[in-house]
Amino acid sequence: MKRSEFAFIGDIASMFGSLPHHGFEPIGDDCTVISMGTDALVMTTDMLVEDVHFLRAASTAEEVGTKSLLVNISDVAAMGATPIATLLSLSLPESAQGEWSEAFMRGYHAACHEYGIALVGGDTTASRDRITINVVAIGRAPMANIKRRSAAKVGDIIAVTGRLGVSSKGLVDIMFGDLTTEAAKIHRRGNARVAEGAWLGTQSAVHAMMDISDGIASDIRHIMELSDVGADIELSAIPTDYDIRYATTGGEDYELLLTVDPANFDAIATALKASTGTTLTAIGRITATGGLRWLQDGTPTDLDLNGFTHF
Amino acid sequence: MKRSEFAFIGDIASMFGSLPHHGFEPIGDDCTVISMGTDALVMTTDMLVEDVHFLRAASTAEEVGTKSLLVNISDVAAMGATPIATLLSLSLPESAQGEWSEAFMRGYHAACHEYGIALVGGDTTASRDRITINVVAIGRAPMANIKRRSAAKVGDIIAVTGRLGVSSKGLVDIMFGDLTTEAAKIHRRGNARVAEGAWLGTQSAVHAMMDISDGIASDIRHIMELSDVGADIELSAIPTDYDIRYATTGGEDYELLLTVDPANFDAIATALKASTGTTLTAIGRITATGGLRWLQDGTPTDLDLNGFTHF
Repeated sequence: MKRSEFAFIGDIASMFGSLPHHGFEPIGDDCTVISMGTDALVMTTDMLVEDVHFLRAASTAEEVGTKSLLVNISDVAAMGATPIATLLSLSLPESAQGEWSEAFMRGYHAACHEYGIALVGGDTTASRDRITINVVAIGRAPMANIKRRSAAKVGDIIAVTGRLGVSSKGLVDIMFGDLTTEAAKIHRRGNARVAEGAWLGTQSAVHAMMDISDGIASDIRHIMELSDVGADIELSAIPTDYDIRYATTGGEDYELLLTVDPANFDAIATALKASTGTTLTAIGRITATGGLRWLQDGTPTDLDLNGFTHF
Repeated sequence: MKRSEFAFIGDIASMFGSLPHHGFEPIGDDCTVISMGTDALVMTTDMLVEDVHFLRAASTAEEVGTKSLLVNISDVAAMGATPIATLLSLSLPESAQGEWSEAFMRGYHAACHEYGIALVGGDTTASRDRITINVVAIGRAPMANIKRRSAAKVGDIIAVTGRLGVSSKGLVDIMFGDLTTEAAKIHRRGNARVAEGAWLGTQSAVHAMMDISDGIASDIRHIMELSDVGADIELSAIPTDYDIRYATTGGEDYELLLTVDPANFDAIATALKASTGTTLTAIGRITATGGLRWLQDGTPTDLDLNGFTHF
């Protein structure tokens, strides 16, 4: 790879920055946001390429369909919005037309049905030899509910939903040939905290929020950069059942990473649990330092943990 | 190809038809529509695959970039809306990272700059060996301006903007090795009637509208089906400089195809010309028969003209 994903995206953002925005917020969050009346629409897009993001040998077509939907609505939930619709583009080689594509659509439909999401547009076309899938997810929320990466405040508690490292542990299981572990199933299906995101959107004490797609070691840096803050993360507090490296640098957990006013944290964690059944765990604090520090029982460690790079 | 594009899309539309729509109109037009307050947002998506939709040997990266934008904003214009923003996904093999992708972005940016369109989201990823491009175009208009394929009325004049058959003549020129004809340049760059679409959107006497992507022989059938009407088209009236087959069955002209109240046609054609410089030409009439008839100087002919099939 000649250019990293982030460098190329950075070039594009600066190149297009001078064009009129027509009410859209600048690039930088999980979704773009446009305000219309009292509500906001949020939108995100994601491209999945065969033999880069999935293998036909390792995932069923239904699983690829379900995961394609879930990873995108996860970005919508991370904005505090409710996913309402998607657009789906498929390019299909001869070998994936018919059975594979029909099973893919069954998996995609099952996830749309589970979360009550419309399919409002799309494109299907041939390809020479590999499948490419592009999903656009659209969400809606009152404008006041929208959560941005830039909203973290010094002193905020850093928190995560659920348990981390499951998806990357599942990927390792799959690499060792065991496709049937609970972690492998979760990796193949994907995850999205739809009810949790929409509920957290209603809480003004929730400041910054995003989903965990590349591991918290990488993802927290987006919040730090856009909020111009630092972060202390306590390794022993991270909710995981596996080696801590899965939880910190493993990708595709699609749990929510958020910062919360410390005065409200306990009440929000209790109410989220009551409303959705999902545990919210405090793992650190937003600091003024500008840096990311990993702590082990309160003492800084020199672990060099970096997030997953797509290229 | 085992299934035609339209059959697969038809299956999908019926499969997802029972899910909640959240205010989006059902699939069937150039764009999906959601009303928010007094305005509507319209959205469309299109996937372009290397060696299916373009060849690196026959189009420059800048041209592919420009065309990717134009074919999508053409769909927005066909709804009577103004394109305001896009989301862009790219999957790039090693050989297209760096120079090719940067030139692509220059072409895409040039077209965005020309029409004042924001880039509000996207995704870049690796691929194994071919480029795939997915563009989502978003437009905005007062809800009353939105034009649908289902709105044609018996007696309406069928009209087209500009001159037809240019892009397919250009494709043939390219196939014969002549990449420099005016038609070849138009084929490689694409086309979009942005000002014309937005202006026609303001006219209540314009009933149905769509863009011509597959040739009028194919495209008029979408209006006929959704409006439950027939059509008579006079071959001698079709504005073209080439063999009539280019104009009727050739793809990618991206001119507008519309139906207009006959009492207002002359005034609209005159005002469109004054406002945009573009000629509107009457080529036929909407009928009650349910069928499509081709006329040669008023006499039905038995030409069997079919549109371009993507698969």
